[in-house]
Amino acid sequence: MGLSSNRVEDLSGHACNETIVTISTTTTTTELQISSNPPFEVHRVCLPPHKTTLQKLRQRLLEVFFPDDPLHKFKNQTWLMKLVLGLQFFFPVFEWGPQYNLKLLRADIISGLTIASLAIPQGISYAKLANLPPIVGLYSSFVPPLIYSVLGSSKHLAVGPVSIASLVMGTMLSEAVSYTEEPVLYLQLAFTATLFAGLFQASLGFFRLGFIIDFLSKATLVGFMAGAAVIVSLQQLKGLLGIVHFTSQMQIIPVLSSVFQHKDEWSWQTIVMGVCFLAFLLTTRQISTRNPKLFWLSAASPLASVILSTLVVALLKSNAHGIQTIGHLQKGLNPPSLNMLYLSGPYLPLAIKTGIVSGILALTEGIAVGRTFAALRNYQIDGNKEMMAIGLMNMAGSCSSCYVTTGSFSRSAVNYNAGAQTVFSNIIMATAVLITLLFLMPLFYYTPIVILAAIIITAVIGLIDYQAAFRLWKVDKLDFLACLCSFFGVLFISVPLGLAIAVGVSVFKILLHVTRPNTSVLGNIPGTQVYQNLSRYRTAVRIPSFLILAVEAPIYFANSTYLKERILRWIREEEEWIVSNKETAIKCVIIDMTAVSSIDSSGIDTICELRKTLNKRSLKLVLANPVGNVMEKLHQSSTLEAFGLNGIYLTVSEAVADISSLWKSEPESNI
Amino acid sequence: MGLSSNRVEDLSGHACNETIVTISTTTTTTELQISSNPPFEVHRVCLPPHKTTLQKLRQRLLEVFFPDDPLHKFKNQTWLMKLVLGLQFFFPVFEWGPQYNLKLLRADIISGLTIASLAIPQGISYAKLANLPPIVGLYSSFVPPLIYSVLGSSKHLAVGPVSIASLVMGTMLSEAVSYTEEPVLYLQLAFTATLFAGLFQASLGFFRLGFIIDFLSKATLVGFMAGAAVIVSLQQLKGLLGIVHFTSQMQIIPVLSSVFQHKDEWSWQTIVMGVCFLAFLLTTRQISTRNPKLFWLSAASPLASVILSTLVVALLKSNAHGIQTIGHLQKGLNPPSLNMLYLSGPYLPLAIKTGIVSGILALTEGIAVGRTFAALRNYQIDGNKEMMAIGLMNMAGSCSSCYVTTGSFSRSAVNYNAGAQTVFSNIIMATAVLITLLFLMPLFYYTPIVILAAIIITAVIGLIDYQAAFRLWKVDKLDFLACLCSFFGVLFISVPLGLAIAVGVSVFKILLHVTRPNTSVLGNIPGTQVYQNLSRYRTAVRIPSFLILAVEAPIYFANSTYLKERILRWIREEEEWIVSNKETAIKCVIIDMTAVSSIDSSGIDTICELRKTLNKRSLKLVLANPVGNVMEKLHQSSTLEAFGLNGIYLTVSEAVADISSLWKSEPESNI
Repeated sequence: MGLSSNRVEDLSGHACNETIVTISTTTTTTELQISSNPPFEVHRVCLPPHKTTLQKLRQRLLEVFFPDDPLHKFKNQTWLMKLVLGLQFFFPVFEWGPQYNLKLLRADIISGLTIASLAIPQGISYAKLANLPPIVGLYSSFVPPLIYSVLGSSKHLAVGPVSIASLVMGTMLSEAVSYTEEPVLYLQLAFTATLFAGLFQASLGFFRLGFIIDFLSKATLVGFMAGAAVIVSLQQLKGLLGIVHFTSQMQIIPVLSSVFQHKDEWSWQTIVMGVCFLAFLLTTRQISTRNPKLFWLSAASPLASVILSTLVVALLKSNAHGIQTIGHLQKGLNPPSLNMLYLSGPYLPLAIKTGIVSGILALTEGIAVGRTFAALRNYQIDGNKEMMAIGLMNMAGSCSSCYVTTGSFSRSAVNYNAGAQTVFSNIIMATAVLITLLFLMPLFYYTPIVILAAIIITAVIGLIDYQAAFRLWKVDKLDFLACLCSFFGVLFISVPLGLAIAVGVSVFKILLHVTRPNTSVLGNIPGTQVYQNLSRYRTAVRIPSFLILAVEAPIYFANSTYLKERILRWIREEEEWIVSNKETAIKCVIIDMTAVSSIDSSGIDTICELRKTLNKRSLKLVLANPVGNVMEKLHQSSTLEAFGLNGIYLTVSEAVADISSLWKSEPESNI
Repeated sequence: MGLSSNRVEDLSGHACNETIVTISTTTTTTELQISSNPPFEVHRVCLPPHKTTLQKLRQRLLEVFFPDDPLHKFKNQTWLMKLVLGLQFFFPVFEWGPQYNLKLLRADIISGLTIASLAIPQGISYAKLANLPPIVGLYSSFVPPLIYSVLGSSKHLAVGPVSIASLVMGTMLSEAVSYTEEPVLYLQLAFTATLFAGLFQASLGFFRLGFIIDFLSKATLVGFMAGAAVIVSLQQLKGLLGIVHFTSQMQIIPVLSSVFQHKDEWSWQTIVMGVCFLAFLLTTRQISTRNPKLFWLSAASPLASVILSTLVVALLKSNAHGIQTIGHLQKGLNPPSLNMLYLSGPYLPLAIKTGIVSGILALTEGIAVGRTFAALRNYQIDGNKEMMAIGLMNMAGSCSSCYVTTGSFSRSAVNYNAGAQTVFSNIIMATAVLITLLFLMPLFYYTPIVILAAIIITAVIGLIDYQAAFRLWKVDKLDFLACLCSFFGVLFISVPLGLAIAVGVSVFKILLHVTRPNTSVLGNIPGTQVYQNLSRYRTAVRIPSFLILAVEAPIYFANSTYLKERILRWIREEEEWIVSNKETAIKCVIIDMTAVSSIDSSGIDTICELRKTLNKRSLKLVLANPVGNVMEKLHQSSTLEAFGLNGIYLTVSEAVADISSLWKSEPESNI
């Protein structure tokens, strides 16, 4: 009969005619348990539409750098409209500005004042975490929010210093330069690192390389943040116990030994005050977590603690000599700091490295927070544009006495809960900070440092997400391993190395999956044309004379040898099973290529070699459903011709039906 | 009606009942162009069989380290048989030894003598390439083949020094130590590097990490070998032109400038002789390539050239003072070199690095050659066992004055063509080398160095595989880029850096594919239950109210953000198309998960977020055909319950049929 050879095979043609020849299976003895009772059709496997190398390159680059098609709004618009859209694109303020009204303003004022009450004590505390003068934290809560409100596209992001970036900057800089002995150099390096952080962030966004931050997976970040939180909390024991001489190292062992070496410096007044306020802060945070409507409780408690503790110290004055206070703070706006940038000298590499590490962490937090609240309110933000906004804000910040800032998770959550409607709440917050800077600075004279330690501990303890870690363990053991690696790496080695190890583990995981992909034997689910994993679907049945294998990964240089050996092993095991069960011998091996999303030259060689090896053993190799680009490469390498007729099918079921009907019609070749 | 909700859904159960409820679609108006005319069945999507974490870990480790199940022969055997099999496993000589007969011996003697005639001149030449005394090349052709013949499992591998490993060793060592000024230190470092090469190779095999060499993809090797061949050929101009003072650097620029700086040293006698023999060698090689039956011509020509040129120089003696000769060579067997190993001191890191780089390259060549000839004769070799054999042979070699050896491609091809039947031909070759070492060494006194240069050039020019490079360009542009990178990296930077860059490009290619996976819109091929890419199959038709997307990669932290944005973009584009074409609005998005071979915790979060985002826009998200481990993770993370009934289907066609019948039965919720 051999009807199927009538199929129009124009293997070299690019366009696909898809001529279908209906083959009526006139077989009456249904030896094969396949569901081809109605006349079955054999469909051509098409090549994808022909494209030149340049077209493919263009499409590929577009997909890599502009996956979200950011300019889609500009299509089919007049020139004037394009100009307006362009302005809105670069300055989102023009998008929401014209529709701004009093109702929105009222919501923004409330939320802006709420986050200001949180931002002022946190700003001072985080600056201390970065070993910077407290006032730099306030400066950083003033200029960057203003710039972000013009450039940023998130509606709920509350901008300012954050714990992670502060801590990383403090760690990395103070391991090389002492902030007590060389405060000016330290400050210069901090501003310079901020400049490089901004440059790095803005260029990631500008060159649309934002996907690089995706390599810091959630698993890595969970471990990293928990490790950092532990280290920072322990470091704060300095403030909480009133210790004067403390290590500047950040590993857990020197920090702990430093705490117990200086037992004589512990001050009971400080400890009592610290523990009381820490308990107060943790309790209000716990209440707010349980009841989100009481969010203002935890939002207001830092400011309340600062005011209360300052009053206590001011009243006790002479009796509280064991308690260290902030002391004199200069009144006035951000002084320019362009002249303080350290752009040549031995510490420049350190400043660049610190800038890049703290910049990428700040970016990760900012983008993640922005995306979270955008998803809650069902709007989208463009990651690359956000990166440019955050980068420009840090570059401007470095010239106006600010250090690294980004969108803070805790303040953004408070902002969202307080009902912020637009990024205008950042302007309100900045105004509140402005008033503080201009008029209220003397009030901080008696603010005890222990209260800042308590605020920092409360903030970072929230970063320890043990539930997420438990979930990782439950869902993906390798993710949990990456999480553990970054946790212990940060705790025992250092922040950048811990992060690098965790990213390494994550990339290794991808490579492991590519190197050892899954393969499985398929069987037919009776009554359907569906072929599924035999070990998973107990109703699936083997098709005699066929071995149907599914390969669940692209075939690459890194796995082609493995796949060849693994497929030969499947055949060997199947043949052993057949011999012991006295079943029909295999005559045809079908590889289901549905999940083989890509192939490279080594993969093509493997397919060819496998075909030759099987042919020598009188086994036929058939490919089912190769995807577009695999088909294209098979064609370009002339492998398609080698497979020829009856070598490539659209589905496994068509392959099984066609080949078995072929065998029936040509019984002589059927050995 | 809502019949489909009768489906027994036991989402938390591990075993799968696959209760099938036949739903007769009583709809008469076929509004949807789906091929569900016969009553369609909805099948349960099964979880894979339950396994504990330990079982999974065990299975995973087995798949990573023992993918070929090397111990399968030992199953169900008696203890005595296991002992015999164990002996055969570790010493393959016990496998073929007992069946050895006179007929095989005759074939092996012929092939052994043939490769010996090639091995002797090549051994001397390659030792020169590694800047070692010529006799070390002969030593290296004696001990290692004997050891390999006991341990090795390939029948056709001809063992000895090879050009790539020699050149890498020569390059890396002579950049730090001058072989003319400190010959003893240089020799010590060469033996030490050989020891570490052997240790590294054997431990790769022992710990079954052989897959590491797969990361040197064919594309990388094509570029690397071509670059190395160009550099080596240019370096041989020293011998070919008779230059005495020459650079020891290996980059193309210093080599070329060295050639033209020393024009006064060019010797016309050397040039004439060199060009003549080079032409002779290249011609015979060309003839043998065209007519494989004349393989002996190219196999014999190096020895013939050596004999002829030695005779010419010996006869011309006084008139040939411009021609440098090898000079006195010591008679006798390999002296022990254990006392020459350099195991502490400033050059130890260099020796280790050189050993690892030359060891991995030697391994790559040896394994690739072994696999090639095994495939030709349809037997399999165990890569990890081969690595141990090659490693042990080099460790033994380093103690008996040998440098790095492996299976040579050119000699193995000659061996195969000469009819070698077992690894015994290596013993014959070693015996011929033994006789040479014991009795024939004085004959090399007048052998001109220029002839060695000609032999090296002929050998390495064969490594430039421009056809393979062209094929890479045709099939895979990124593979071609990796090839170019290693070519230019080796040419202009250095051998290890060039290789590292090429491996980097290859790994980057994998990551790029993972970071930006392919997604496509599917349509139904009329008359079937097959859904295929709409842009590839012109006959495929859209199903109104549905958007069916295929994701062609695992969903990982590195691509989850991209995939979410890309899927939302597909929906936006589809909605724009619908508005402009006045079609039915989308109500359901089906994601075909067939090719999503794996998912991690970030991927699960993305699926959940996507579901929530779409729900807010009154769109239903449905997954079709998730594979076993994806299903398992969806279950472990409780995402499965969120999807619940009508959220996960076995095939796209069942999803389409079931959901549209549901809409018909519940028209009120159908907005």
